[in-house]
Amino acid sequence: MHLEQLEKINSTEWVTDSNGNFAISIRLKGERLFHEVSPFQTVEVFDTYNRGRMLTIDRMVMCTEADEAAYHEMIAHVPMLTNPSVKDVLVIGAGDGGTIRELVRHDGIERITMVEIDEAVVRASKEFLPTISSALEHPKLNLLIDDGIKFVQNADNNCYDLIIIDSSDPVGPSEGLFTKSFYQDVYRCLRPGGVVTVQSESPIFHQKAFVDLNQCLKQVFGVECVHCYLVFIPMYPTGMWSLTYCSKGGAHPIDNLDNEKATQFVKQHNLRYYNADIHKAAFALPGFIQEMIS
Amino acid sequence: MHLEQLEKINSTEWVTDSNGNFAISIRLKGERLFHEVSPFQTVEVFDTYNRGRMLTIDRMVMCTEADEAAYHEMIAHVPMLTNPSVKDVLVIGAGDGGTIRELVRHDGIERITMVEIDEAVVRASKEFLPTISSALEHPKLNLLIDDGIKFVQNADNNCYDLIIIDSSDPVGPSEGLFTKSFYQDVYRCLRPGGVVTVQSESPIFHQKAFVDLNQCLKQVFGVECVHCYLVFIPMYPTGMWSLTYCSKGGAHPIDNLDNEKATQFVKQHNLRYYNADIHKAAFALPGFIQEMIS
Repeated sequence: MHLEQLEKINSTEWVTDSNGNFAISIRLKGERLFHEVSPFQTVEVFDTYNRGRMLTIDRMVMCTEADEAAYHEMIAHVPMLTNPSVKDVLVIGAGDGGTIRELVRHDGIERITMVEIDEAVVRASKEFLPTISSALEHPKLNLLIDDGIKFVQNADNNCYDLIIIDSSDPVGPSEGLFTKSFYQDVYRCLRPGGVVTVQSESPIFHQKAFVDLNQCLKQVFGVECVHCYLVFIPMYPTGMWSLTYCSKGGAHPIDNLDNEKATQFVKQHNLRYYNADIHKAAFALPGFIQEMIS
Repeated sequence: MHLEQLEKINSTEWVTDSNGNFAISIRLKGERLFHEVSPFQTVEVFDTYNRGRMLTIDRMVMCTEADEAAYHEMIAHVPMLTNPSVKDVLVIGAGDGGTIRELVRHDGIERITMVEIDEAVVRASKEFLPTISSALEHPKLNLLIDDGIKFVQNADNNCYDLIIIDSSDPVGPSEGLFTKSFYQDVYRCLRPGGVVTVQSESPIFHQKAFVDLNQCLKQVFGVECVHCYLVFIPMYPTGMWSLTYCSKGGAHPIDNLDNEKATQFVKQHNLRYYNADIHKAAFALPGFIQEMIS
């Protein structure tokens, strides 16, 4: 690149998300829309040049309007379209609301309990990311501002069909969402045959967190019941992100997919990323990632 | 990120690859290993903090040692494992040698003609990227330093079983590799039933180039014979890169895959990214990309 471009990137016109050795930078447009130092973290909303508005937490990219569908569709529809009888859902995190927007597309769901620790994220999203937060007032949703770790500690046994862990990276308030004791509680709260999907980090940008979490999940759910899958998220560093599907002795995420129903669902809801082929393809892992978690 | 980190990224310790709105930055280690302003472009080799050595052209990332396998395995083995009888191969570009290293794993190949316009790329790679350039002295290889566009203009009809277009981005000397007249020549040089794989850019970082090239290929090869596939390349901007498989009325890239042979091949060569599941999965496209090229 040319020197003038480099100088622009060095200015405050860009948000940069770095692990010290690799970084992505997204160019900002206009004034910052939201900024608050909450008790937990710094929450900001910016406008960008061609990825729409962007939510950051401690300057780490959480989502952009142009790209959020990949993450939210894949964390919600992969478990839902293999487990169509899910009625009771617990969601930890997910403050921007994108996961809830996708879940409420499934008429079979009767209740969603969402536990987000930081009300500033919810408030920022409701005000400045209306297309993402659109279901945060949905009648099936019970939104609690609370600590998800304590919530699952106190939750009853066998009471959810699906639990989604839609966390930020394992620093700050999300750190406890990457521990064995947390997942032991999650397992306990799940009904037999129940399912969990987890934001499980980038195999490259956060290799240690990715590998450690995979091992932890296998210890809790059993090797045969843990299935890592990959999603392209261009505005996350390295663009390669993982989610993990775990079951309490329940449905297999590929064998139990109802192709026809999935195809119908995609058309009906005009999904942007998910489709039945992508659902199955996402579980194919490159050799070097298989090796990391073998 | 913290201010100190931002200041480091702003220094010359990082290589930044940007399209003006989005950028990736890779931290450099030690002194620059190679730097030459050739008649075509600026060719450089750096060391990085955890992606190994890196080749850049005009400061755009061409490959890193840690990540190059994804690109090179996918551009070579997807066509080869669906077309095992390939004997004569033409490669345009590919100066670093990674594509050749992958091709020569296939014993059935009898001759590879490689046409690279810039000998500085070959020289840099031979000296500083030995694990990538390792097959550039292979007895089956005829390496020509020449203009690939003129080469295919002058090539005989129906003389190659496989042509690989392993180009850099459509600026500078690679620009002519993104035109209809070039692909008409490529088509003419192919034997009936022959196959082409093409570096076809990022659907997000270079959306226009990606869409235009797809349309061009469909005009030349016919809609039914053009198949886009995706590869995770973490050190390319957005991490989501496309390759395109085209045939002159030949094998389908999924239906004609010999699963067993592919699995055997992966084991034998200890591949890092490619496997039979990834081969098939790569052709599953997210809805928004299907829409871009429909």
